[in-house]
Amino acid sequence: MKVQVPKKQLADTLGHVERIIPTRSSNPGLSLIKIEITENELVFSGSNMEIDIQARLKADVEGIGQVALPAHVFSQVVKSLPGELVMLTFNDVELEISSGNYSTKLQLVEPGSAPEVDFPSQYGGEFDGASLVTALSSVRYAAAVAEYQAIFRGVKLELSDRKMRAVATDGFRLAYYHIDESSGLEGEVIIPARSVDEVIKLLSKGSVRSELLQGQQLSLANETFQLNLKLMEGTFPEYDRVIPNQFPVSITLESDALSQAVSRVAVMADKTANNRVDLFIKEGLLQITAEGTYGRSQEALEVSQEGSDSEIALAFNAKYLEDALAPVGGEMRVAFSGTTTPSVVTDLDNPSYLAMVVPLRTG
Amino acid sequence: MKVQVPKKQLADTLGHVERIIPTRSSNPGLSLIKIEITENELVFSGSNMEIDIQARLKADVEGIGQVALPAHVFSQVVKSLPGELVMLTFNDVELEISSGNYSTKLQLVEPGSAPEVDFPSQYGGEFDGASLVTALSSVRYAAAVAEYQAIFRGVKLELSDRKMRAVATDGFRLAYYHIDESSGLEGEVIIPARSVDEVIKLLSKGSVRSELLQGQQLSLANETFQLNLKLMEGTFPEYDRVIPNQFPVSITLESDALSQAVSRVAVMADKTANNRVDLFIKEGLLQITAEGTYGRSQEALEVSQEGSDSEIALAFNAKYLEDALAPVGGEMRVAFSGTTTPSVVTDLDNPSYLAMVVPLRTG
Repeated sequence: MKVQVPKKQLADTLGHVERIIPTRSSNPGLSLIKIEITENELVFSGSNMEIDIQARLKADVEGIGQVALPAHVFSQVVKSLPGELVMLTFNDVELEISSGNYSTKLQLVEPGSAPEVDFPSQYGGEFDGASLVTALSSVRYAAAVAEYQAIFRGVKLELSDRKMRAVATDGFRLAYYHIDESSGLEGEVIIPARSVDEVIKLLSKGSVRSELLQGQQLSLANETFQLNLKLMEGTFPEYDRVIPNQFPVSITLESDALSQAVSRVAVMADKTANNRVDLFIKEGLLQITAEGTYGRSQEALEVSQEGSDSEIALAFNAKYLEDALAPVGGEMRVAFSGTTTPSVVTDLDNPSYLAMVVPLRTG
Repeated sequence: MKVQVPKKQLADTLGHVERIIPTRSSNPGLSLIKIEITENELVFSGSNMEIDIQARLKADVEGIGQVALPAHVFSQVVKSLPGELVMLTFNDVELEISSGNYSTKLQLVEPGSAPEVDFPSQYGGEFDGASLVTALSSVRYAAAVAEYQAIFRGVKLELSDRKMRAVATDGFRLAYYHIDESSGLEGEVIIPARSVDEVIKLLSKGSVRSELLQGQQLSLANETFQLNLKLMEGTFPEYDRVIPNQFPVSITLESDALSQAVSRVAVMADKTANNRVDLFIKEGLLQITAEGTYGRSQEALEVSQEGSDSEIALAFNAKYLEDALAPVGGEMRVAFSGTTTPSVVTDLDNPSYLAMVVPLRTG
């Protein structure tokens, strides 16, 4: 078998697949990449037990077959190649990679040693890739990081016949992103945050076919990539009822202006005390202050205030506030339900997004 | 005291000084920066006991005085400022930093708590900054990294009435850079590699005044920065007599071509076995090969060969070879004294530079 393929495309494709394949594993087969050489393309596949991936690449091919080899070495060799074209020549035991004056021989492994990955032959649903990725990337930050937080470490997708919603929360903040389109699938699934990151990277283009397997696996595919995502088991909290809807005070302003002011003031915040910044709103003026070991910082912003006869003083973790603002591009509303109950951030130009942040206890 | 100064320049200057000042130290005074406010400039100083630094910055000043405060917090606040101009207002206990709508107050510390740094009032010698930095940066890579290698972890400067030479070696490779200019100083000093890095970053511009203090401290100063560098104690090896001068085979070629070929082939080299690449030279052809767990790679380069009736096969640590080539811009000569004795790299356009690399034992 002989294959000729542009170096950059081969390197890019392998770069995506090797991100998923483990560098080291107690099961050495897991570090292998399988290559199917078909009439006019190469099909790469691998797995880390949480995510199976398959990637297709058009190529000039002579002969067909199937081989496996260590994914990371193969990818590293390809990245270092001098020329623009790569020639791959397979025999029974070796792959010769040549480009320019350079050639290298990599030992092949029995394809049966690589993990068996099995993608759906039919897909029942379909997403718009751009919408799916916008929804996931707008809420991803709110998923928990700590190991013990179990189900909070995933992003929930709620799929119905008329709409779709992505939600993430770690118990201290929450974000959702809502789309008024059906995917054709129905159900609720929780995708591990690490798998969500791959969907965001790989599936933003074109149409994304989808299929649910017994509530345990979500398969997604576009023209180039197929992913099987192992789903999380457990019950996601009933978040709807904790989102407040009465707000004595709310303000509207540019997301960027608030975000930058919070970030500057937070330089002085005490990192060991929840990175606390204080907000005080009165008569259309928002004052942000922080105080730490080394001193105190403050900044004031003019805002448009509803509930203008009221004032409110409350405190947040600066990082949580900045995260909540990041998905909003332009004007936004921050609505305060009280000093100890959640505040809600919404995007005035895009009703799809909502973020909730619980204030710090200041008592 | 009030000071007005452009943000970017203040941030850049503080960035340099804080690189030297420790973030944490058992002596809390060491993490302070001292600021002298003079008629028309700010003079910042700090120390890590190995390096004392002083940096000057022109500013609009009202009042004069001297204060100290935690260096890293001050620098971080300045970096995050929104405006282009910064106003610093000092009172007895606080520094108020304001820019745009933002203001912050940092607590000041008694200036006596900051380390006392003392720079020479007169300098006896003078370097051209660009030459000094070229010499040091061309040999820096050859200094040892491991803690136990003591004196090998420094760069030696040999200063005489007619020339100057920078040398570094870790016992397996050596590099020197020679300048036919006198600094006005005479003697031999060994500068810790970490201090050499600061000289390279800070003193490449203009003329660099210099002074030796009792063989224990080298002071260097240009218009903006002054450094006191604590020197290393110990005896540097007599390296001259280990540089060979008989070469049965030598080749000339472009430095970049060899460097890139070695780097590509080395992808397959066994990192646990000295990252070995093999060179074989015969009839004007240089073949580079490497073999590791996963396979074998090779590349051939046409070279101009002296000693053309001979051939030679030897092996190197690929990293050492690449390091030795890096300071050479164009055509170079690699001269082989034997399969187990050092090889020598010289720059055909610049006789100042010489590098020596000991081949790996291949038996």
